[in-house]
Amino acid sequence: MVNPNSNPQVTRNLAEALQPVMFEAGPEIECVTLAEGPLGVQTQADLESVTIPLSRLVAADNSAHAFVIACYSDPGLHVCREATQRPVFGIAESGVLTALSRGDRFGVIAVAQGSIGRHLRYLRQMCLMDRFAGERPLNMSVAEAASGDDTLARMIKVGRQLKDEDGANAVVMGCAGMSRHRSALEDALGIPVIDPTQAAVSMAIGTVMFQ
Amino acid sequence: MVNPNSNPQVTRNLAEALQPVMFEAGPEIECVTLAEGPLGVQTQADLESVTIPLSRLVAADNSAHAFVIACYSDPGLHVCREATQRPVFGIAESGVLTALSRGDRFGVIAVAQGSIGRHLRYLRQMCLMDRFAGERPLNMSVAEAASGDDTLARMIKVGRQLKDEDGANAVVMGCAGMSRHRSALEDALGIPVIDPTQAAVSMAIGTVMFQ
Amino acid sequence: MVNPNSNPQVTRNLAEALQPVMFEAGPEIECVTLAEGPLGVQTQADLESVTIPLSRLVAADNSAHAFVIACYSDPGLHVCREATQRPVFGIAESGVLTALSRGDRFGVIAVAQGSIGRHLRYLRQMCLMDRFAGERPLNMSVAEAASGDDTLARMIKVGRQLKDEDGANAVVMGCAGMSRHRSALEDALGIPVIDPTQAAVSMAIGTVMFQ
Amino acid sequence: MVNPNSNPQVTRNLAEALQPVMFEAGPEIECVTLAEGPLGVQTQADLESVTIPLSRLVAADNSAHAFVIACYSDPGLHVCREATQRPVFGIAESGVLTALSRGDRFGVIAVAQGSIGRHLRYLRQMCLMDRFAGERPLNMSVAEAASGDDTLARMIKVGRQLKDEDGANAVVMGCAGMSRHRSALEDALGIPVIDPTQAAVSMAIGTVMFQ
Amino acid sequence: MVNPNSNPQVTRNLAEALQPVMFEAGPEIECVTLAEGPLGVQTQADLESVTIPLSRLVAADNSAHAFVIACYSDPGLHVCREATQRPVFGIAESGVLTALSRGDRFGVIAVAQGSIGRHLRYLRQMCLMDRFAGERPLNMSVAEAASGDDTLARMIKVGRQLKDEDGANAVVMGCAGMSRHRSALEDALGIPVIDPTQAAVSMAIGTVMFQ
Amino acid sequence: MVNPNSNPQVTRNLAEALQPVMFEAGPEIECVTLAEGPLGVQTQADLESVTIPLSRLVAADNSAHAFVIACYSDPGLHVCREATQRPVFGIAESGVLTALSRGDRFGVIAVAQGSIGRHLRYLRQMCLMDRFAGERPLNMSVAEAASGDDTLARMIKVGRQLKDEDGANAVVMGCAGMSRHRSALEDALGIPVIDPTQAAVSMAIGTVMFQ
Repeated sequence: MVNPNSNPQVTRNLAEALQPVMFEAGPEIECVTLAEGPLGVQTQADLESVTIPLSRLVAADNSAHAFVIACYSDPGLHVCREATQRPVFGIAESGVLTALSRGDRFGVIAVAQGSIGRHLRYLRQMCLMDRFAGERPLNMSVAEAASGDDTLARMIKVGRQLKDEDGANAVVMGCAGMSRHRSALEDALGIPVIDPTQAAVSMAIGTVMFQ
Repeated sequence: MVNPNSNPQVTRNLAEALQPVMFEAGPEIECVTLAEGPLGVQTQADLESVTIPLSRLVAADNSAHAFVIACYSDPGLHVCREATQRPVFGIAESGVLTALSRGDRFGVIAVAQGSIGRHLRYLRQMCLMDRFAGERPLNMSVAEAASGDDTLARMIKVGRQLKDEDGANAVVMGCAGMSRHRSALEDALGIPVIDPTQAAVSMAIGTVMFQ
Repeated sequence: MVNPNSNPQVTRNLAEALQPVMFEAGPEIECVTLAEGPLGVQTQADLESVTIPLSRLVAADNSAHAFVIACYSDPGLHVCREATQRPVFGIAESGVLTALSRGDRFGVIAVAQGSIGRHLRYLRQMCLMDRFAGERPLNMSVAEAASGDDTLARMIKVGRQLKDEDGANAVVMGCAGMSRHRSALEDALGIPVIDPTQAAVSMAIGTVMFQ
Repeated sequence: MVNPNSNPQVTRNLAEALQPVMFEAGPEIECVTLAEGPLGVQTQADLESVTIPLSRLVAADNSAHAFVIACYSDPGLHVCREATQRPVFGIAESGVLTALSRGDRFGVIAVAQGSIGRHLRYLRQMCLMDRFAGERPLNMSVAEAASGDDTLARMIKVGRQLKDEDGANAVVMGCAGMSRHRSALEDALGIPVIDPTQAAVSMAIGTVMFQ
Repeated sequence: MVNPNSNPQVTRNLAEALQPVMFEAGPEIECVTLAEGPLGVQTQADLESVTIPLSRLVAADNSAHAFVIACYSDPGLHVCREATQRPVFGIAESGVLTALSRGDRFGVIAVAQGSIGRHLRYLRQMCLMDRFAGERPLNMSVAEAASGDDTLARMIKVGRQLKDEDGANAVVMGCAGMSRHRSALEDALGIPVIDPTQAAVSMAIGTVMFQ
Repeated sequence: MVNPNSNPQVTRNLAEALQPVMFEAGPEIECVTLAEGPLGVQTQADLESVTIPLSRLVAADNSAHAFVIACYSDPGLHVCREATQRPVFGIAESGVLTALSRGDRFGVIAVAQGSIGRHLRYLRQMCLMDRFAGERPLNMSVAEAASGDDTLARMIKVGRQLKDEDGANAVVMGCAGMSRHRSALEDALGIPVIDPTQAAVSMAIGTVMFQ
């Protein structure tokens, strides 16, 4: 799993969130930081800046049996797939596909309003808009969302709007670093909540183990 | 995992195919046979005959944290979801969604021509036709497909048509009992091949372990 | 015409609503009750419970030239079509298709909120969502809707929301037993109102008479 | 029922084809010829030339409870609907919608190649392409198709291509004057064949009688 | 450029609005009035009344290298294309396509509520609804919109609703005679505003000059 | 107009192809070479490598009123739009949209098979697949296509397949450097042929001149 931003604390959090599937005798899951990444990935320019470094990292790695790109815009997904024959998973793609296995229509909780247009373009590219209920922002900075005490409270509020006003019956957390809120959010909303990182890792484990 | 037909040999094969993810300290995966099921599930009537028994089985079970229905028409999926709060996965749904994480357009290998219309209706219900390349039959009976020596050869032939003529860049094996051919078929075709049973189990493991 | 619930009063009401097309020299229309049906069909489990009995009834009947399944979820439609070469009409399908001949976008009045998700899945399967304006519930029980004095008043209220807020220019009454309100509702809304039972019977008469 | 071309023989044929639903005590069905119509309606210009005359005829008529425009391009359908509050049916629209009640995917037999582009635009406008299998021409003139001895033979040939190569499981005869071949064509193809004139009249009868 | 209504003042305004692209050595742009046109084009009947006259005008003209039909319902577009081999542009089609090059989702400002249904049918025919954010009316008569002092103010109000409530990030002015407000409206909204007449003329110039 | 590859000969060719719209008193069109670009843009990696350099070029330029990215994969289109308030046109987007104004269904001539998957993803993102007839490759290298004597002959052959087998009634040349063949190809095929560079420049001129 590659964290495309250069913040090692984020990478450590990702690793911690994956503990439940670090099975004895299961596949080894290594979380690495992209040295060339920006401190956070928020703008289209941030995304574009990591695509080539990600594809180089993937091409240079000789040990992984599969890769996960841990940013909810799936930066560089297609160039990485061009760079290797091994499977490459993007967490946005995996998260949304997994949501489709849990509810008829999915909603997405974005961190910032500015990302929604980009996410919608991507959903259109994946041809998944017919099952899309809506996407709403927390209107927090990534830093606030990561550390803030009321992140969960805001997620619950936005999730309820997705459920009650937009008709979502499954919700995707549209950010890589929210895993620790998944369970509480699901309990509060009463509908499945998908953490995209966990979704991608689950798919990757299956792909690797059944080879 | 519930095998909706009443053939215990099929159930044993399913269990065997899941060995790679029966991790030490991982979730226990139990494969059960639906006593009320027909010997094979092929017609619409076969499917309809198992929906209520499946929902009863799901409602009566107090131990499983998630269910997988192991038939590539996802019989009773929605009535089972009505019968429990726990996640229920259908292998057709999981297989196709997983294929979308591996290629732009997916093809499906059906056992019999007669199932294709039903599968297409289901793909339309899931709103996934925009990524669909085609579905082609082996034109074998389920029994032949299960035991026949040339099953793999036929799958390779049909898979190549899906790839070369229909433009598929990922292929789903449209039957519950073909897991053992997945790897060889993938090698022969040079594009990802998805076993739907393994796909559903991977999603189920993730859902259960990250709870 | 088969009433999939076992309430003979509902069957009698259906027969009465069809009087206007019981032409001298026209086709005979027989309304029968499905003995095995539940008292009302509301949940997914109710629906699944009647599919096999319906297909048996259809297969065993030697006199009808066409069949109509009189429940607005079209239970067992495809298994009945598998069971006979004669035409089988579902009232939901016929009702929505007929609405498309009367307005650009159709709305649906459901009896209960709980049916809407199921109806949407079915509209998606029929690929008719692009002409769908919305579906709104009366929030009454089927019993209340059948007998209650203010059923029409609620239908008018909900129909106006479909027209004014959702942009529907034709409305389908999403239940088998509302025929007697069709005309008054149409007058009140000022846009075409489709009774699905009447729509299906009209299609069935044409199919039979032009054979 | 209005025949938009000025050939009274065509109008007489239409009337004859409707005999089976001219029930004692049923609605009166009057077939009229549009005096201003061209001898045949084939080009876009032919179509445009009848729209205003059709709307005048509809507006001037005080006796009909519903109208059917009997040309498989539905000329003037929307301007006629603007000209009256009474229902106006187009045979193309009714024919295709009725086909959707008989099969998952429909094919269309056109008389001439030159009409297919126009028909496709109309199918797109109706948002029904997701259920469309294909349209193929007889490559005959309307006159040949009307009188020629091998019209049925050609329709069978084209119908088989729609079924076997395009995957249609219902076929619409894409012309107003082919009713007499419907039954034989259906027998030959083994799948439902829809005559659009009969389909529209069936819908119109239901609409009028249930008022 | 043909003004399909018979108001020569409208034609003079169109010509004036095109001054910026009447380049020295560029193509000559001639604006003509359709003599047979109604004073304004608002109803479906108005539209239908000009289709044949437009096609005659196009067929009879020997000098133009391309045609633009200057009415935001593209009356007669297809019959004109049948009448000539030279390119024919409709301003609605050109306007919407140009909007798609400026924003992910477009909104439309209609003059009157009564036109919106017709515009939506046309957008469906063009298969462009997946990028459509919404259409809202000024609720003014064409005469008011043309002359009224508060036309711009109302356009800004409606444009803001399209942007803020419907999610449009580009707006099309859904009328031929609003060019002079384009720039001010764009400044007020902060997103691209497309004048459909200018869009069509730009496409026409390119087509003619690059021949 | 920015040529994203670093080959100045390509840039000179682009400039030459735009002579017909370099009007006296019209907008100045400057063609520049992206210094950081690869010699040709063919792979996904080539594309990704120019996105950030393109956005820097756009952000640093103070004189242009609009930008055109002259590569038929529209590399960096969205990051460039983030980098400036001025309009940025991609030639693929402009070419396809312009084709939609000339025919019901468009085909694309690609240089190489390897680009088609990427182009399809982009068409899906733009939601334009419903009007897409097909894309077929010349199976030449870009160098061959640029200089080879039989480029036109191959384009005619592929264009005829798009027209006759895939049903295209307009064709887009899927490469920046084929302008000089447009007219001859159009004559040979008998349907409109769109050069995407010219299409984008036409839209850009309109946008700039009408400001």
